[in-house]
Amino acid sequence: MKINHVKVEKGIRVSEIVERFSETAFNARRLGIAGKIWKEMMKEDSFIFMTLAGAMIPAGMREVVRGVMENGFVNSLVLTGANFVHEVCEALGYSHIIGSAISDDVELADKGISRIYDVFIETSAFEAIERFFMETFKELSGNYSSFEIVWEIGKRLENSFLSFAYENKIPIFCPTLHDSIAGLHLMLYGKNVFLDYSKDLKLLLDLCSQKKKMGIVIIGGGVPKNFALQAMLLAEGFDYAIQITTDSPHYGGLSGATLEEAKSWCKLKIDSKAVTVYCDATIALPLLYAYLLD
Amino acid sequence: MKINHVKVEKGIRVSEIVERFSETAFNARRLGIAGKIWKEMMKEDSFIFMTLAGAMIPAGMREVVRGVMENGFVNSLVLTGANFVHEVCEALGYSHIIGSAISDDVELADKGISRIYDVFIETSAFEAIERFFMETFKELSGNYSSFEIVWEIGKRLENSFLSFAYENKIPIFCPTLHDSIAGLHLMLYGKNVFLDYSKDLKLLLDLCSQKKKMGIVIIGGGVPKNFALQAMLLAEGFDYAIQITTDSPHYGGLSGATLEEAKSWCKLKIDSKAVTVYCDATIALPLLYAYLLD
Amino acid sequence: MKINHVKVEKGIRVSEIVERFSETAFNARRLGIAGKIWKEMMKEDSFIFMTLAGAMIPAGMREVVRGVMENGFVNSLVLTGANFVHEVCEALGYSHIIGSAISDDVELADKGISRIYDVFIETSAFEAIERFFMETFKELSGNYSSFEIVWEIGKRLENSFLSFAYENKIPIFCPTLHDSIAGLHLMLYGKNVFLDYSKDLKLLLDLCSQKKKMGIVIIGGGVPKNFALQAMLLAEGFDYAIQITTDSPHYGGLSGATLEEAKSWCKLKIDSKAVTVYCDATIALPLLYAYLLD
Amino acid sequence: MKINHVKVEKGIRVSEIVERFSETAFNARRLGIAGKIWKEMMKEDSFIFMTLAGAMIPAGMREVVRGVMENGFVNSLVLTGANFVHEVCEALGYSHIIGSAISDDVELADKGISRIYDVFIETSAFEAIERFFMETFKELSGNYSSFEIVWEIGKRLENSFLSFAYENKIPIFCPTLHDSIAGLHLMLYGKNVFLDYSKDLKLLLDLCSQKKKMGIVIIGGGVPKNFALQAMLLAEGFDYAIQITTDSPHYGGLSGATLEEAKSWCKLKIDSKAVTVYCDATIALPLLYAYLLD
Repeated sequence: MKINHVKVEKGIRVSEIVERFSETAFNARRLGIAGKIWKEMMKEDSFIFMTLAGAMIPAGMREVVRGVMENGFVNSLVLTGANFVHEVCEALGYSHIIGSAISDDVELADKGISRIYDVFIETSAFEAIERFFMETFKELSGNYSSFEIVWEIGKRLENSFLSFAYENKIPIFCPTLHDSIAGLHLMLYGKNVFLDYSKDLKLLLDLCSQKKKMGIVIIGGGVPKNFALQAMLLAEGFDYAIQITTDSPHYGGLSGATLEEAKSWCKLKIDSKAVTVYCDATIALPLLYAYLLD
Repeated sequence: MKINHVKVEKGIRVSEIVERFSETAFNARRLGIAGKIWKEMMKEDSFIFMTLAGAMIPAGMREVVRGVMENGFVNSLVLTGANFVHEVCEALGYSHIIGSAISDDVELADKGISRIYDVFIETSAFEAIERFFMETFKELSGNYSSFEIVWEIGKRLENSFLSFAYENKIPIFCPTLHDSIAGLHLMLYGKNVFLDYSKDLKLLLDLCSQKKKMGIVIIGGGVPKNFALQAMLLAEGFDYAIQITTDSPHYGGLSGATLEEAKSWCKLKIDSKAVTVYCDATIALPLLYAYLLD
Repeated sequence: MKINHVKVEKGIRVSEIVERFSETAFNARRLGIAGKIWKEMMKEDSFIFMTLAGAMIPAGMREVVRGVMENGFVNSLVLTGANFVHEVCEALGYSHIIGSAISDDVELADKGISRIYDVFIETSAFEAIERFFMETFKELSGNYSSFEIVWEIGKRLENSFLSFAYENKIPIFCPTLHDSIAGLHLMLYGKNVFLDYSKDLKLLLDLCSQKKKMGIVIIGGGVPKNFALQAMLLAEGFDYAIQITTDSPHYGGLSGATLEEAKSWCKLKIDSKAVTVYCDATIALPLLYAYLLD
Repeated sequence: MKINHVKVEKGIRVSEIVERFSETAFNARRLGIAGKIWKEMMKEDSFIFMTLAGAMIPAGMREVVRGVMENGFVNSLVLTGANFVHEVCEALGYSHIIGSAISDDVELADKGISRIYDVFIETSAFEAIERFFMETFKELSGNYSSFEIVWEIGKRLENSFLSFAYENKIPIFCPTLHDSIAGLHLMLYGKNVFLDYSKDLKLLLDLCSQKKKMGIVIIGGGVPKNFALQAMLLAEGFDYAIQITTDSPHYGGLSGATLEEAKSWCKLKIDSKAVTVYCDATIALPLLYAYLLD
């Protein structure tokens, strides 16, 4: 089939350009194919995991994450402790600030500003988070999976995909909860709380073993990617997989590992449909979301 | 200013999402800012160069390149010999083919198919190109700059940004013309043609010395980037610069060099507005073009 | 100071060339500076953490990890579950195999071979690992931190840095133990074992609060990097930091985040000595180890 | 074959560790294999091109480039205009300076310091280069290939691989000479000099058509890579190829293109031995040079 040179006219919609990308090349094509695969996942009524690494929430993606969840484009989330904590921060009304990647970090430290590449966040936000976590964790007692703790937090918030998940009993796994500010506060204030990841694993395995098409959308790599893929070692493998990453395969790490490699582990079915988009997810994910909405 | 989490609604236009990206972070923000800078370039009636490295034409971007030129979003082009040759190929009616990056290259070689990552092109196309260049170069005699040779080619084509450039006397510099299949054919068949880059440099310097705002849009790095930036060593520097690249600064090469570094060389004015977008240009350039159209 | 062009003579030792790299540029200089900083860490009798992400053990680095530990170049390790599991695999006598990154993964799956980029591992190895973990986890009961479980495993192995750590009570934190094959087996067979990361956090905080110079060597990013750096939010920050990574800062993720950014969080002291080497750790780490030995 | 975990003992030589790398994985293995392939190139008495992009000379690699040439490890060089100009700069006694990648470029511009990532160079150096080129180019008249101009320059210098090349009639192609400061000076002062790349192409094709094993060592990508590989479209292809790059294949550009892809173009023979090392060449090249010396 011929390369179809992408045409762009005045007022073109995101969904139109993403559709056209699928007949070009390189990562534009990969993005277009990702859109088609995700759409097929939906058509096939698949159960879809989305894994979320990287600082997507500080980067301004919380409405997108909420949107894909509210529209049923994903059925479960696996996110890092950092994304969890920064979502709580936003839900509590403490915004992230447009900063600069070229900053004097010593000066920022003096001012009580922490930097996430070109995003700033003030100490006051972390103080509010600590108060919130302290009060919450003091109320809890017993064994909790990470998704139950996320629900407990969601129950106490509004206008967040965390509260939406709680209300709709959507499991949000946070396998690095202990490796986050929330984890530090859990240790300090959750004297009666026992974080039991084996409960997460059990639910994850149940979800991975459903008798329906299984799909996964991997944003960045890290533990969320491994956590969701690895569960398939005890199940039948994903039918669909989309990976959005800026890591390269040729350095040998899991975050950059190809989805083909995942087939050798049977984490993906050998006849699964899979594509990797090498692009900053802050660009690629909103485009895919807009594509799915139309 | 607060991070403004990007909202996406049904039917959202590309121009709207790019606009919203400018209040997020990472490369979404960089893309949004690139759109604003390019728009300001236009508003200020700047003279705008676009440099084009990478295999953008094989990748399906020829209509986009043509569009930015026809709409006056760029006033001069600096492209690689490869992009020049592959545009000639398309204009002659020989399309690039949707291939796969996972291919048996020995088998492809046997079949007479050449691979450009996930794009294929057949030997027959190169035979047509050779016939065309042979006939053309045999007709020419004398000293030619690369932009004059590009015009001579454009004069003999239709439905191409090369013919548009010829008809409208838009200079398209091709500083690596000799390092391309066209260069090989020029050596073989252009016995009376002398490729004189000093004529390119002279025009380039004149264009860089105009008494108006100067802007540059750098797609990829390589010679096109250096060729256009370096001319400013003999002029006053660019007022605006946009760079779309997937190269990293920390390996020290020019292709990944930051636009800040260019200020130390006075290739950019110290008060110039500049932004680098770390993204595959097959995604970023069409989005920026759509943004400018609205 | 002038760039001192690196001289290479017959029989040059690794330690000599790394020393000379420090007066060149780009990542050769960064590597040379990393050597000097690590040497100073030793001279100042610092307590040194090494974090280990990426598939370093499958890649043939187990003797290097063991060597830096046995020579006292590091005092504590923070590693991924994957590196832990693959070290157990090697210690049990099941070797990783030299494979190829260009493989038919469906065929590998049929043969029961799992691929880690250009490394292969056979199903039989995983069966041995499962037997070993099953027996071990059935013997354990009670609350265990990850470093205690690592010691329990080390106690049952020979010729491994895990056994060396057990014998010498060197803490090896494994904050993603639950996100590994070991984690799956712990859930399946460790009915009486509770993995309690809060015990890891407590020891980690104690270690970070020692009244001596604190240093960190970060291999790759991920949870190990964040786990060790974040503990310093409750302490005074590292005095020395070396980071070896192939991730880029400009995509905004933590794995690629600069050590300067870490200063804004006070994870590094504002006057700390820090350097990032952008290089595959399979090359950089053995070179640094050889440098320290001399 | 099993992964052979790299052992490092006190006083280990570079050649020993590179040898051992070949039985590990990822880029350490690639580096080790590169050493073996280069050694075989020598054993087979191959004619070896080395292409040199990136700012290798400013980065402190001029002695290494000179060494590989003097030792006969390469028989011809294809370098960028930038590497050529900066070598002239060093040969004239104007050193590059150890700078910092984190600099205020506006302040540097004021001080007359130009930055190349973490290397500085002062205006005085460029003034000396201009005087030298002016005097030289005024003396020349007629048609010159780039390698002839390089020889003319080498004739007027000492203690440089340029003078060594002149004395030993080693062809150094500089296909981007016109796209460099030397090119600007050639236009300004070389009124009677015609830069005729067709003469370069003719010699290059003759060299590529020799009846012996042909090898290539590609440092970085860009025009030097394409210039040397493309010549093989009119010859039989390389028997051996080593590529050291930090570019990725998945963005579709030539600089990151795999050597497998080059086989589909018949630029490499289908049974050629080829390896790509993904590593900063400031680290990898000196290590390979040391390996060959032993």
